[in-house]
Amino acid sequence: MPIYHDQLEVRTHGKGLYEITDNVQSKIAKSGMRNGTVTVFIQHTSCSIVIMENADPTARRDLEKFFDRLVPEDADYFTHDAEGKDDMPSHIRMVLTRTSETVPIADGKMQLGTWQGVFLFEHRSVPHGRKLFLTVMGE
Amino acid sequence: MPIYHDQLEVRTHGKGLYEITDNVQSKIAKSGMRNGTVTVFIQHTSCSIVIMENADPTARRDLEKFFDRLVPEDADYFTHDAEGKDDMPSHIRMVLTRTSETVPIADGKMQLGTWQGVFLFEHRSVPHGRKLFLTVMGE
Amino acid sequence: MPIYHDQLEVRTHGKGLYEITDNVQSKIAKSGMRNGTVTVFIQHTSCSIVIMENADPTARRDLEKFFDRLVPEDADYFTHDAEGKDDMPSHIRMVLTRTSETVPIADGKMQLGTWQGVFLFEHRSVPHGRKLFLTVMGE
Repeated sequence: MPIYHDQLEVRTHGKGLYEITDNVQSKIAKSGMRNGTVTVFIQHTSCSIVIMENADPTARRDLEKFFDRLVPEDADYFTHDAEGKDDMPSHIRMVLTRTSETVPIADGKMQLGTWQGVFLFEHRSVPHGRKLFLTVMGE
Repeated sequence: MPIYHDQLEVRTHGKGLYEITDNVQSKIAKSGMRNGTVTVFIQHTSCSIVIMENADPTARRDLEKFFDRLVPEDADYFTHDAEGKDDMPSHIRMVLTRTSETVPIADGKMQLGTWQGVFLFEHRSVPHGRKLFLTVMGE
Repeated sequence: MPIYHDQLEVRTHGKGLYEITDNVQSKIAKSGMRNGTVTVFIQHTSCSIVIMENADPTARRDLEKFFDRLVPEDADYFTHDAEGKDDMPSHIRMVLTRTSETVPIADGKMQLGTWQGVFLFEHRSVPHGRKLFLTVMGE
């Protein structure tokens, strides 16, 4: 079975959800594979990969507000803060979400539902270049 | 390596955990494969796939109570509520859990531990037909 | 495509993060495979597999403190407590994190970022022998 590896770099400018569905789908097209799975893996511990509702932007904003409350930046018991107040919360948010998503591919396309999109979930406030490693396995 | 795709539809009638271990195992049997992995992927953003304790029903009930407290329906800062008070909480619960599980297969069986079951975790109150896409890769 | 299955047993002695990156990498070396993916699957419902920052131990300690607050052992509404006060919290922590991680392999190595390590996240207080099932698929 063929294996196709590729990489993506995504520029982020502050906390929030960045849709990468089309970027991933383009890499699958480039792989030439029609059936199998793609694993979208993020090579960082302060941002995540999630599948989320991609139709209504208010859903993403409410999600971000929820995480700001669930993992507050001013928790007085954090000691890991060398990179600032969003340092430790970024790792916790990553552990509470996902480092990768594996999505089935059929007929050359990710088998996402109608409202699903693949997103990079950035947990840091300053701009970053985020590296993703993609592996398509199939035929 | 053979690739086998299949689909499952699960009827849900309100929030909670619905075990689908046997449904997934039947699809693996149908695939004829003995070794590899199965990816169980849910095509929605308001329910999840999780592996959970499947022996004692009180564990599932306590889990549901925990999520009701962690992601309350009456948070006053939610604006995404077109489908009701459980709309935004359903997306948050999904992000906090999983869209898919990938499980190793050996000797034709998922290599689950003694107390592990695969569950659909429904986050909406009204009945739904939930679509799952399964991919078995192996031999 | 070859498929390689293997198992790992990890001894834990109380709650916390136990790094297993080298153990997993050794199994990949043993498989002889250079490209593909590894699925690291834990066969229990009271501990997790997560990828986390592996450079600064304070990050792990802060993560553990966060989870102690997020899922308290003394919640008065838990009824599933046959194995003690950490019984139900251990299942909830597992659902909030992950049962498995799938990591791309290229040039014979897991494609982890600079600060990423693979960890077993133990949620029980008493010592346990934890079983992991690993599947490498590739070439």
